[in-house]
Amino acid sequence: MWPDDARRMRELGISVVRVGEFSWSRLEPQRDQFNFDWLQRAVDTLHAEGLEVVLGTPTATPPKWLIDEHPSILAVDESGQPRGFGSRRHYCFSSNIYRQECQRIVERMAKAFGQHKAVTAWQTDNEYGCHSTIISYSNDALVAFRQWCKQRYGSIDQLNSDWGNVFWSMEYRSFDEVGLPCSAVTELNPAHRLAYWRFSSDQVASFNRLQVKLLRQHSPGRDILHNYMGNFTEFDHYTTAADLDIATWDNYPLGFLDRDSESDTDKKKWLRTGHPDSSAFHHDLYRGVGRGRWWVIEQQPGPVNWAPHNPAPLPGMIRLWALEALAHGAEVMSWFRWRQAPWAQEQNHTGLLLPDSTEDEAVAEIRQLTADLDVIAHELKESGNASTQGPPVAFIFDYAGDQMLRIQPQGNNYSPLGWVQDIYTACRNAGVDVDIVPADALLDSYQLIVVANSISINDTLLKSLQTTSAHVLLGPRCGSKTDELSIPSNLPPGKLQSLIPVRVTRVESLPDFAIETTQCENFEVHRWREKIDSKLQPQATFNDGWGCYYRHNNIHYLNGCLTETSLQSFITTRLEEAGILITPLTDGIRIRKHKGLLFAFNFGPDKEQLSIDGRFIIGQPELAPGEIAVLNLGDG
Amino acid sequence: MWPDDARRMRELGISVVRVGEFSWSRLEPQRDQFNFDWLQRAVDTLHAEGLEVVLGTPTATPPKWLIDEHPSILAVDESGQPRGFGSRRHYCFSSNIYRQECQRIVERMAKAFGQHKAVTAWQTDNEYGCHSTIISYSNDALVAFRQWCKQRYGSIDQLNSDWGNVFWSMEYRSFDEVGLPCSAVTELNPAHRLAYWRFSSDQVASFNRLQVKLLRQHSPGRDILHNYMGNFTEFDHYTTAADLDIATWDNYPLGFLDRDSESDTDKKKWLRTGHPDSSAFHHDLYRGVGRGRWWVIEQQPGPVNWAPHNPAPLPGMIRLWALEALAHGAEVMSWFRWRQAPWAQEQNHTGLLLPDSTEDEAVAEIRQLTADLDVIAHELKESGNASTQGPPVAFIFDYAGDQMLRIQPQGNNYSPLGWVQDIYTACRNAGVDVDIVPADALLDSYQLIVVANSISINDTLLKSLQTTSAHVLLGPRCGSKTDELSIPSNLPPGKLQSLIPVRVTRVESLPDFAIETTQCENFEVHRWREKIDSKLQPQATFNDGWGCYYRHNNIHYLNGCLTETSLQSFITTRLEEAGILITPLTDGIRIRKHKGLLFAFNFGPDKEQLSIDGRFIIGQPELAPGEIAVLNLGDG
Amino acid sequence: MWPDDARRMRELGISVVRVGEFSWSRLEPQRDQFNFDWLQRAVDTLHAEGLEVVLGTPTATPPKWLIDEHPSILAVDESGQPRGFGSRRHYCFSSNIYRQECQRIVERMAKAFGQHKAVTAWQTDNEYGCHSTIISYSNDALVAFRQWCKQRYGSIDQLNSDWGNVFWSMEYRSFDEVGLPCSAVTELNPAHRLAYWRFSSDQVASFNRLQVKLLRQHSPGRDILHNYMGNFTEFDHYTTAADLDIATWDNYPLGFLDRDSESDTDKKKWLRTGHPDSSAFHHDLYRGVGRGRWWVIEQQPGPVNWAPHNPAPLPGMIRLWALEALAHGAEVMSWFRWRQAPWAQEQNHTGLLLPDSTEDEAVAEIRQLTADLDVIAHELKESGNASTQGPPVAFIFDYAGDQMLRIQPQGNNYSPLGWVQDIYTACRNAGVDVDIVPADALLDSYQLIVVANSISINDTLLKSLQTTSAHVLLGPRCGSKTDELSIPSNLPPGKLQSLIPVRVTRVESLPDFAIETTQCENFEVHRWREKIDSKLQPQATFNDGWGCYYRHNNIHYLNGCLTETSLQSFITTRLEEAGILITPLTDGIRIRKHKGLLFAFNFGPDKEQLSIDGRFIIGQPELAPGEIAVLNLGDG
Repeated sequence: MWPDDARRMRELGISVVRVGEFSWSRLEPQRDQFNFDWLQRAVDTLHAEGLEVVLGTPTATPPKWLIDEHPSILAVDESGQPRGFGSRRHYCFSSNIYRQECQRIVERMAKAFGQHKAVTAWQTDNEYGCHSTIISYSNDALVAFRQWCKQRYGSIDQLNSDWGNVFWSMEYRSFDEVGLPCSAVTELNPAHRLAYWRFSSDQVASFNRLQVKLLRQHSPGRDILHNYMGNFTEFDHYTTAADLDIATWDNYPLGFLDRDSESDTDKKKWLRTGHPDSSAFHHDLYRGVGRGRWWVIEQQPGPVNWAPHNPAPLPGMIRLWALEALAHGAEVMSWFRWRQAPWAQEQNHTGLLLPDSTEDEAVAEIRQLTADLDVIAHELKESGNASTQGPPVAFIFDYAGDQMLRIQPQGNNYSPLGWVQDIYTACRNAGVDVDIVPADALLDSYQLIVVANSISINDTLLKSLQTTSAHVLLGPRCGSKTDELSIPSNLPPGKLQSLIPVRVTRVESLPDFAIETTQCENFEVHRWREKIDSKLQPQATFNDGWGCYYRHNNIHYLNGCLTETSLQSFITTRLEEAGILITPLTDGIRIRKHKGLLFAFNFGPDKEQLSIDGRFIIGQPELAPGEIAVLNLGDG
Repeated sequence: MWPDDARRMRELGISVVRVGEFSWSRLEPQRDQFNFDWLQRAVDTLHAEGLEVVLGTPTATPPKWLIDEHPSILAVDESGQPRGFGSRRHYCFSSNIYRQECQRIVERMAKAFGQHKAVTAWQTDNEYGCHSTIISYSNDALVAFRQWCKQRYGSIDQLNSDWGNVFWSMEYRSFDEVGLPCSAVTELNPAHRLAYWRFSSDQVASFNRLQVKLLRQHSPGRDILHNYMGNFTEFDHYTTAADLDIATWDNYPLGFLDRDSESDTDKKKWLRTGHPDSSAFHHDLYRGVGRGRWWVIEQQPGPVNWAPHNPAPLPGMIRLWALEALAHGAEVMSWFRWRQAPWAQEQNHTGLLLPDSTEDEAVAEIRQLTADLDVIAHELKESGNASTQGPPVAFIFDYAGDQMLRIQPQGNNYSPLGWVQDIYTACRNAGVDVDIVPADALLDSYQLIVVANSISINDTLLKSLQTTSAHVLLGPRCGSKTDELSIPSNLPPGKLQSLIPVRVTRVESLPDFAIETTQCENFEVHRWREKIDSKLQPQATFNDGWGCYYRHNNIHYLNGCLTETSLQSFITTRLEEAGILITPLTDGIRIRKHKGLLFAFNFGPDKEQLSIDGRFIIGQPELAPGEIAVLNLGDG
Repeated sequence: MWPDDARRMRELGISVVRVGEFSWSRLEPQRDQFNFDWLQRAVDTLHAEGLEVVLGTPTATPPKWLIDEHPSILAVDESGQPRGFGSRRHYCFSSNIYRQECQRIVERMAKAFGQHKAVTAWQTDNEYGCHSTIISYSNDALVAFRQWCKQRYGSIDQLNSDWGNVFWSMEYRSFDEVGLPCSAVTELNPAHRLAYWRFSSDQVASFNRLQVKLLRQHSPGRDILHNYMGNFTEFDHYTTAADLDIATWDNYPLGFLDRDSESDTDKKKWLRTGHPDSSAFHHDLYRGVGRGRWWVIEQQPGPVNWAPHNPAPLPGMIRLWALEALAHGAEVMSWFRWRQAPWAQEQNHTGLLLPDSTEDEAVAEIRQLTADLDVIAHELKESGNASTQGPPVAFIFDYAGDQMLRIQPQGNNYSPLGWVQDIYTACRNAGVDVDIVPADALLDSYQLIVVANSISINDTLLKSLQTTSAHVLLGPRCGSKTDELSIPSNLPPGKLQSLIPVRVTRVESLPDFAIETTQCENFEVHRWREKIDSKLQPQATFNDGWGCYYRHNNIHYLNGCLTETSLQSFITTRLEEAGILITPLTDGIRIRKHKGLLFAFNFGPDKEQLSIDGRFIIGQPELAPGEIAVLNLGDG
């Protein structure tokens, strides 16, 4: 079947194929009885059709014999129960035994395939953290965490002081007394939880690094990547990515909508297209994580199996999602999976082929896509690959900040990631492109810098903000905590007070039915509000007298979460002030500029008319639902 | 008190009394110290009034001393915790020690009472599976499961292949490595879960068989029965029932409504009557399970204690429910319980007597019922017990199919049992009687055969369907999986493609707010829809172009779940095509034909006028809520 | 910092300061290495400013070294998992080792500080039961429970009989077989659960008593108190309080509203004021618990950290809540806490000072309050401290009754505490003051006695009710169970049948959408209804014929839960019949009489006009939201 598959892939326009992840029980059916022949055959077969191969290391699924030999490999849940064999990701990142076993199998694979001409890249493991697997409460983790604490805090007195352990008599006498943040009677010390999150995130990075090192050694010149996920912040992706060449991610727009969205209105409106900013947000984020190099390595080709409900995409979306990735700069866009598997957990996950090897619906769209890509390539060649100026807006995305807010939300309707995405949507609705970058990024090229979840302010970021001439939008809660998740001695927003003279003297979280509005200006705040002490006049005043939104030269401090309409108007004004060109869009239309081209996508339920100047090289001004257009702006 | 009780029972018209279930701690207060005197006295007392006795074996409640002696008897939950003593059903079906203990006590009882004239039947245990007790994750279960797998699959390679264990490296090297389907990080292999369900269901059957064997040996000529439950499909009832003489069940219409219904509209409308098809569906099902012989052994006589809310029945319902059971062919209809217990878990469960032995409300209705029964008996004698032709419609009910859909619903609003009951309701609303039968039943006598949850198609059923001249309605998902819960190599509906040339190329599950409608015909689909590849023209077309409902001669394939109104209209048309006489009813009225008589029941909130020809022997054409009428059709 | 703090406290009008609770890890950093110097310094510093000190024993937070030494101190949850170190209250009340350790530290503290002039009171431990910590399933608890059972029941036969263990073969042969009420397959014997609750409640009392004894011995003449909580009934507070001098409680009106209220309407309406009866109910309850002596020892001074949402109070509420406590008779009203802590679990809990020691908003209101207190003190001095007649209404509050209903609610929307509070609200809406007292209280001075949750009737109470000339309102379910939570042999309301000839023959619980109404009178019942057999004519008749509300001379039996409006009208009529003066209030206004003064509070969203005769010494007839007024009634 394989040669035929390879041929069909090539004919369809596919050039890169990922194989091998999860294959440990076939690569090593018993300890030290390796069987790489089948994989060799597979890679050779793909190579024969000129296909490039990404080889996945199989470490996401330690086989049964290995678990039976070393049950301590298993991760442990909050109640002390091992997370057993029978699905995947059942290992603890802190297990030294497992780290050695992974090195053993990865080295073998790297030696066997590292020099193969077809193998152009490696994927380490698979979806770190999927199914809440970053945190494990094993004994190995406890031992490693104590060591980590010793490293970070130096002395137990420092740890006690940094965490405020005097509160509730939580003090430790030595690092040997430090416990795991689980099974407590009530809320744990948030600093303890944050430290454990940082430790766990570091464990992922060091686990990953072991594989990277062996792959670099035995397979030089190949790219190394990992496949990250959507709406997932359970470890610091920047740290892991620092060891990789490319950040890739797995994009399931319909599944994310149904699983992660809070609003039934959204779920209904975007049922068959996904939220119009869902893919784009992650494309922009992973471009930042990958320092410019990124792929979509898994793309939904039809209904999937794992969301609460699994509708079919609107016809056209397979092509649309692919071109959208391209427009945001993806090097590769790959579907998961080639052929629908007839058995086991994911048998209801669509592929490009049905289980009987006949073509599924995505294939026709991919054929059209391949033609589109030719048109675009030709156009780019003609225009000499004109480069578009980068996005005018930068979002600083802070994984630890997101985590701090999850540990201490202070209001149970506060969604840290949701808030960032709300601001992102407001920008995208205004037709503006966005970069999402880490706190230590160079910010010179931007006109507006959005700081929305930097709860503890990194000094590099502070310096960038102090020296930039761009407009800086500081969201609520930014700078509100020290690096150990306590209140800064000068009160929130802490270090940011060097940018703008505001001091937060009171915060409140509000249930969804409580919305606070301002007198003259149309500000509406929900969920979170801060009372400010400042010599500055607030830009507006709430009906109960609290000030709303403060500004000091190019620095803007927003002291509450604006509701959707209010946020859109606020962001639009900020963009305009920053001199950024606005293209107001209906909320189903999205545009992105890429290499002198403008891509337009219709996620909405209605036909829409584009009024953008440019020469249409694909599509036309009228966009039916699910349709796309590409314009050359240069000579439009 | 007992002689008086027995007298009152007889005077009330009661003829059969069940005793003894749960009585182990009184029958054997300490190991080998048996005390049967009290039970002897009880049975003798009942016998003195001419009452028949059903003796229950006490194995649903192993006493404390036995558990303390052998803690391994306890069932084990998913997280590895024993399910402790302190209520009931705390045993594991796979415990060999417990099986021996049960044989010991049952043999003793059978020897002591087996020949007693009053004892006309035995009940094994009590409500197998109540409180989710079919599945246990004990070590005994693990050992037995591995043995069961060896038996079923022969070789570990076969098991690995049947389950698709290559996926996620779940392969085993030997049966000794096979694990329990619990505690995994994420979704388990559905084939693994299905196998464990089949194993567990088989364990119930073999556990039950041990008792049956001893009872047949020591108490020959008596009926052996078990009391099954409502809306309960957690083991295959046909298998257990194959060893019994009679299927009995426990009917709590108000409790089921409040506990099991998904819709608040239903809960409000039928608050004091129960859903009009709830009892009837189970009567028809257990008639099938019992191969024609069935009882209601527990019937709600007033408010119960265990539902989320426990309202009083509408006056009249005690009599109505009883006559309804008779109309569906019950041999015996018995209330639970005689006297309300003043203490322990069920003290708020109504009986026929209040705790102070005065009569509760049900008694007056039972007196009226006894008079009704005399009228009916007289009428039947007059008419020479005319037999009515059996129901024209057969539903194939498949316990494994139900389980497969529970394991892999693919949409979290998909209720497998609910869907079958929706179709049942549509038939009953049309005034049509229904048989519910297993896949290997003889289907010669029917005009319409409904196949709604046969996910994997049994060869006997396939043959019946291939040769029948009846209309066959195949519901969505039927035939969509192999016996090992994988996708058939020829795609769904698998073997059913031999009946009708359709091929399911895509499925989707939909949230409740998403309803798909067809262009001309009034089809409305929710929750589940399939895209069909076929040379047949669909009978209708959805607005997005998918085909809806396919037909090939007498074979009908419905490729989605129709909403209530749409389903009613669809089923009515199918019944008419099959030449079945329709009696459209308001949704509170239900009718059933039995031995030449027609019974009519009003579950609705309003007075209703019957327009059915016949001679009223009980009641009249106008039915108030909770009222019933009986007509002789023969000479009406 | 401390001397400055003490000075600022004094200047603000503060006179009592609580310190020391939770401080074990600082008082004894290692076993037997005591360090009391810092606390000595703290107490001396406060003393120097003339402040009184309440010293808290630190036993709510055993330090890590103690837990590591004796892990058996940890409480154990229902699934057998220890409730670990890392927050607070991680001990089991039944641990004898922990009891000894507590005696050790308390004795040391008592000896060190017991004679200090500043120390005027001691607080034992902190918030017994917070975070569901009354019940523990440890081995120590099992051993003690068996002993407790032996004591209570004398023989195992008695226990078996009292609990009805014959049901489901739950009988024990000896006390050594008695188990813990957890981990059963389904519902446990309610009598078993009740006994375990009583045992656990007794364990709290005896645990507390050990400390009280040492404190009395080494610190004679000081008051001993404990801080109870709001909406908390998980142990019998009367029993513990019998050993104390003063009952104190922790009042968080906004947190309670958001955490405990069932209704979103309430949550919205009282978002920033708290429910107008929330504080008052507890003030009245704890006045009863403390036999007249009670404090608010923790009062919310701004947003807190622990509720689902944490809004800021309406300006004025800090002062209002304080005067409300005074009006209900509090000796002391104290805020929690002085300074907001910058780290650990409660860093988002407001204090009087911000973390940087600047004043938070509450301070300005406290200054105003201090002035108010001077005005009031002056007025009282003028009037010679005229005493007001006590409240005309007594509520009997029964902790065991509340627990019985929680164990066996029979309807999942039945809130035992909520029902009592609904009746309380109806009285307070009528402008009537209320005492809340135990079943053995003297009831001579009341005109209306409300018995709302006395499920098992205490003989002392029965005698009081039999002899009183006051009107007695008996709510549904009162008297419905024996002391062992079984049905009385004469049926509910059991012993209360000696007061009024009614007999409950049927009960029903109803979902929220089912409301039963009466024909002529405007009674509306929801959630719970009883059918009565009586020679009395019911005062009204439900549409389905059940009787509603029975009366026999001064005894009133209400056989269902009335809806809000219906309850208000019913209670108003009862108050009037009892000759109690009604002052109908809008539902945001509350009044209370205290020492010849009348205090009026506006919790509502609108300005309200008071029409009460009297001389205003604070405020005026028009009350803005959050405003208060004080009138002298004597010469108004």
